Amino acid sequence: MTYTYDDVYINNYATVGGPYEKDGPIGPSIDKVYTNLYADEKTWEQAEVKMLSDSIDLVLRKSKKNASDINLLISGDLLNQVTASSYAALSFNIPFFGIYGACSSSVEGMILMSSLIDGKKIKNGIVSVSSHNMSSEKQFRNPTEYGAPKPSTATFTSTGGASVYLSNQKGKIKVESSTIGKVVDMNQTDPFNMGAVMAAAAGDTIYRHLQDMKRTVDDYDLILTGDLGVYGREILIDYMHQEYGIDLGKNYDDSGTMLYDLKKQEEVLAGASGPLCIAMVSFANVFPKLEKGKLKRVLLVATGALFSPTFVYQHKPIYSISHAISLEAIR
Amino acid sequence: MTYTYDDVYINNYATVGGPYEKDGPIGPSIDKVYTNLYADEKTWEQAEVKMLSDSIDLVLRKSKKNASDINLLISGDLLNQVTASSYAALSFNIPFFGIYGACSSSVEGMILMSSLIDGKKIKNGIVSVSSHNMSSEKQFRNPTEYGAPKPSTATFTSTGGASVYLSNQKGKIKVESSTIGKVVDMNQTDPFNMGAVMAAAAGDTIYRHLQDMKRTVDDYDLILTGDLGVYGREILIDYMHQEYGIDLGKNYDDSGTMLYDLKKQEEVLAGASGPLCIAMVSFANVFPKLEKGKLKRVLLVATGALFSPTFVYQHKPIYSISHAISLEAIR
Repeated sequence: MTYTYDDVYINNYATVGGPYEKDGPIGPSIDKVYTNLYADEKTWEQAEVKMLSDSIDLVLRKSKKNASDINLLISGDLLNQVTASSYAALSFNIPFFGIYGACSSSVEGMILMSSLIDGKKIKNGIVSVSSHNMSSEKQFRNPTEYGAPKPSTATFTSTGGASVYLSNQKGKIKVESSTIGKVVDMNQTDPFNMGAVMAAAAGDTIYRHLQDMKRTVDDYDLILTGDLGVYGREILIDYMHQEYGIDLGKNYDDSGTMLYDLKKQEEVLAGASGPLCIAMVSFANVFPKLEKGKLKRVLLVATGALFSPTFVYQHKPIYSISHAISLEAIR
Repeated sequence: MTYTYDDVYINNYATVGGPYEKDGPIGPSIDKVYTNLYADEKTWEQAEVKMLSDSIDLVLRKSKKNASDINLLISGDLLNQVTASSYAALSFNIPFFGIYGACSSSVEGMILMSSLIDGKKIKNGIVSVSSHNMSSEKQFRNPTEYGAPKPSTATFTSTGGASVYLSNQKGKIKVESSTIGKVVDMNQTDPFNMGAVMAAAAGDTIYRHLQDMKRTVDDYDLILTGDLGVYGREILIDYMHQEYGIDLGKNYDDSGTMLYDLKKQEEVLAGASGPLCIAMVSFANVFPKLEKGKLKRVLLVATGALFSPTFVYQHKPIYSISHAISLEAIR
């Protein structure tokens, strides 16, 4: 499902990260950094709530808005029952919708928010996402104290919160069009190889977006997927070539390979993941380039792995989904 | 956040239930019933996926549509990582958004879908929810084999799936207006007393809806909350009176008290809960009355408890939210 927008703009955005994000190449562009994973809270879950809340606070301040000026908050995260989002939402008292698109949540939220603004139901809103390395590891994999070794295809859940303020007020970045993804099954069962799980979903959505908009990859200065990681990125390049005869070319990159220094930060293995990943990379690194006109048109292609530990134990394959949103620099 | 709609209609709906729902007063109106909680699957989680899928299948058939005719599927459930929805979505190959509003998910989904249709982004869509007594008990409370006793304020998670088809094509039920809820904290910590947790959220949303629409409770033939249960229903009546001086009157009821026969089905304690609850009661019992003109205007007020076992263990209060949607009979 692809459609276009008339009057929706990205006016402001804010990112909050942890120690690993601080040490990565995008570190200097992150608005606020905590040097410990607890973010001065007692638990990892409460640290995630704090980082998400901080990012909402920051984007409100940058936008010179009070929470009471905001029509709607849409937020998603990986914690069971999407609790980071719900608990962060309380203190702002903004009408709230929780969403779940796994690591595709940021673009799912931006599509929903942009659609409501463009359809004149609301005038503005904030879309937020968060993830936390330790709260995720604890929930999805092994008790972290085990120190279980992982294969090189495993990715590293990013830590922090990111929020973006969208409105019908003209800004430097226009939301131009979007494509809503479908659930894809590539019969993958390995939770340590999410890149392989999600690459086909990204490929399917990119292909449908280009078809629906009658465009080629050359119409974008940047196609940014996430969070596929080193191996998923290569799988997607191959998949696009073999399945659709499309060469993703030099303007393609994956946010999972950009958040950390893959050579120095060896613990991240195949790269970054988590709902925060593509949000942090695009907000801190890509949006400023759009605002300065260094990039004219960008396609964000967020990818999510749809599964739960329970379904993996029941020998079900891990499904995936990907949503895309096209952003343009306004002169 | 309250706004109105010009051209969105509820054209069709379908419900699928389990043995407890079959034996309740709404049983005869449920479209499809499984007489065992496994629904002929090997696990409760797969049973939930099946029931949700069945309800999508049924609403497609009733609407004489193929899945490929549908612009968007929005679905939510209580399972970790919203897996019932994601796994049901696969076989239909419809563009998909997962949402999480706990037991308020059906109305959250209907508001989002109606907003996208009325904003002319899409022409039609299906909103689905599911819950399952055993998959919920297993996930949120104790291993079911323990047979742990529960207080009388506990509610009983309903089992099944429900789907509604909305479009811009005139039907007998019009989506008239809606109010998006805010997260509410009443400092409640007891997961066995959800009615007390959620009553204030329902009250807040009903009050804001009436204020924004400049209406009184008498402008509705039915105000239907859910899923508060026997005690939550009484708390809401008191709360509306004390907090706002509003008498909910004889046109108020709660779906949690309507799905089961509270006298004969003693195991349900304070009544029904789960995302399915208000969806099943309204689709199977209220929508037919709107179609026949027996009810002219109905306010559905879905309530959700926002928490996770992890946050309860960390001594955090259980938050809640409630979203409302106003439906009108079309002559």
